Amino acid sequence: MQLKIGVIKGDGIGPEIVTEAMKVLDRVGEVYGHTCEYTQLLMGGASIDVNGVPLTDETIAKAKECDAVLMGSIGGDAKVSPWYKLEPSKRPEAGLLRIRKELNLFANLRPAVLYDELKGACPLKEEITEGGFDMMIMRELTGGLYFGERRTVEENGVMTAHDSLTYNENEIRRIAKRGFDIAMKRRKKVTSVDKANVLDSSRLWRKVVEEVAADYPEVTLENMLVDNCAMQLVRDPKQFDVILTENMFGDILSDEASMVTGSIGMLASASLNETKFGLYEPSGGSAPDIAGQGIANPIATILSASMMLRFSFDLDKEADAIEAAVDQVLKEGYRTGDIMSDGKTKVGTTQIGDLICVNI
Amino acid sequence: MQLKIGVIKGDGIGPEIVTEAMKVLDRVGEVYGHTCEYTQLLMGGASIDVNGVPLTDETIAKAKECDAVLMGSIGGDAKVSPWYKLEPSKRPEAGLLRIRKELNLFANLRPAVLYDELKGACPLKEEITEGGFDMMIMRELTGGLYFGERRTVEENGVMTAHDSLTYNENEIRRIAKRGFDIAMKRRKKVTSVDKANVLDSSRLWRKVVEEVAADYPEVTLENMLVDNCAMQLVRDPKQFDVILTENMFGDILSDEASMVTGSIGMLASASLNETKFGLYEPSGGSAPDIAGQGIANPIATILSASMMLRFSFDLDKEADAIEAAVDQVLKEGYRTGDIMSDGKTKVGTTQIGDLICVNI
Ligand SMILES: CC(C)[C@H](C(=O)O)[C@@H](O)C(=O)O
Ligand SMILES: CC(C)[C@H](C(=O)O)[C@@H](O)C(=O)O
Repeated sequence: MQLKIGVIKGDGIGPEIVTEAMKVLDRVGEVYGHTCEYTQLLMGGASIDVNGVPLTDETIAKAKECDAVLMGSIGGDAKVSPWYKLEPSKRPEAGLLRIRKELNLFANLRPAVLYDELKGACPLKEEITEGGFDMMIMRELTGGLYFGERRTVEENGVMTAHDSLTYNENEIRRIAKRGFDIAMKRRKKVTSVDKANVLDSSRLWRKVVEEVAADYPEVTLENMLVDNCAMQLVRDPKQFDVILTENMFGDILSDEASMVTGSIGMLASASLNETKFGLYEPSGGSAPDIAGQGIANPIATILSASMMLRFSFDLDKEADAIEAAVDQVLKEGYRTGDIMSDGKTKVGTTQIGDLICVNI
Repeated sequence: MQLKIGVIKGDGIGPEIVTEAMKVLDRVGEVYGHTCEYTQLLMGGASIDVNGVPLTDETIAKAKECDAVLMGSIGGDAKVSPWYKLEPSKRPEAGLLRIRKELNLFANLRPAVLYDELKGACPLKEEITEGGFDMMIMRELTGGLYFGERRTVEENGVMTAHDSLTYNENEIRRIAKRGFDIAMKRRKKVTSVDKANVLDSSRLWRKVVEEVAADYPEVTLENMLVDNCAMQLVRDPKQFDVILTENMFGDILSDEASMVTGSIGMLASASLNETKFGLYEPSGGSAPDIAGQGIANPIATILSASMMLRFSFDLDKEADAIEAAVDQVLKEGYRTGDIMSDGKTKVGTTQIGDLICVNI
């Protein structure tokens, strides 16, 4: 099979970790008889450096010609990034928001898994995590506060800022369906998170999710308020299978959940549209402080490539092979610094990539 | 001194826990020569039962005549509450939102403290919490998404829900000042939390907070994105002193922080206006499932009464006495079920109240 893959190397550690994921994809191609055809695309800080803007129309057009896009991390951090002083619409993150909208990537999937081999890094006590946990956060990605109208104006001599949060029933229905579809392939439980005791958008959310749930009699639906969910993720993460929520709540809860695993460097993500097209990227940031040192953990990006094979190309066997190779490398005791612990072997970014290839 | 205190016993375990807090206040009065004059006020489910609405104008007027209000928990839970089926504007929580607005309680203070005696209940590993942590969350309580215009309408045959998030510079400035004032009495660090890479309201927030910070050269200000903060609370809660944030982010983060302590039944809260007036309530919910059994933990409410003495009446010595008595009772090994552990003595709601009185 011919895989047409767009590649956005991104900023900070992005180029290093994406390089390893491409190496692993090529290895999978070799073993299973596929060819990866990569199209390099510029976005974020790297695009600002070349084009003056974080995302060009040309990049969007080229991305649309691919079957899927693999991406490193975008942006910088206030302390070290040269783009931080730019106005928000010109910063690297603006490219990320725009590409989500332009490519209609409304369904963001972020697994939060406690790896048995990495339990030591989990901030929670063992009695809470015994037996592990494995949840999938399904975040709506093209609506809500992120894409509402906003303005800052002087009203009666006082600066006033407005943002708006809008959802219509169709936007809610399509993400809810995705959530229930995924739950059907998992443990058949959906926790829908909202703030229905305050927000109109949350009340519509809850109503539509309940309607969709009626079409999935095998799936258990639980409604949970966002403040309670923020507590439950810490108190008892095992209770969750699929968490279904809107854009801003999903941003907060998915980051909390990923920290609860203790191994952000292991967590992949996928952002999908109505077709098979998707954008795949690690959950973690661009970590500019360690960029270029060859010590970043490429596994999240490699697992994102595995999600890509699964969701955009229906290559489940190949995706399984990558995941098994990752497990094997962990089992053999190889670790990058971020997940290092006593008695393990510390290796760098490229070695992890090589080791994973060897196991495919 | 004459203390004019409004009392909203509230729903679920509310009446039981408030009764203990009043007992403790009376004891303080006895020892230090004050008289508490209580005015019973109805709100929430209890008000719905009597008046058909969660809050009447009469209650608001009576509350305004008091120096402070002590409150139990409001509302129910979907599984057991008779009010759950009501439309949102008629539910118990609507009373809570309205009283916050009517009394202009813009500054919500929620301490999240790890009690040395209760470390066992903390969900985080000991290596993370060693030495304990003690943060104060300062949440803006009368603006943002909670009080923006909202509507649900049919647009081109599609149901669409809108909420809006507005802050003006004055609203931000007054809560920021409160945050810095509190920080001056603590470890002199403010972490201001926003989503300035996306929201206009957050960018104005950050700008105004930075202006206010200039008046407090001794206080260190750190700006943090809300998704990052949700992670940091789990990764390293010790880094926080005062967390300053807007209404919805504060709702989520303060609940997360309280769960990170592992002892929600111990956590007080205060909601203050521009004067000395405040409404004081436990952080936890009304726990209708255990109401009336005499097993609820009254300590959060008792500590809320202590915050009341401190913030509304400037009675620091008396507030200290309550806190010392609570510490003593914990040290002696007395526990309600929610904070029970091996080798401790399990007691009920009224015994805890009695024991605290004995130690004042
Ligand atoms: C960079 C930022 C705009 C983005 C978001 O808030 O969506 C990031 O936090 C994420 O979760 O991908
Ligand atoms: C009951 C609800 C409206 C309320 C809120 O969201 O403010 C509660 O969660 C709280 O934090 O006091």
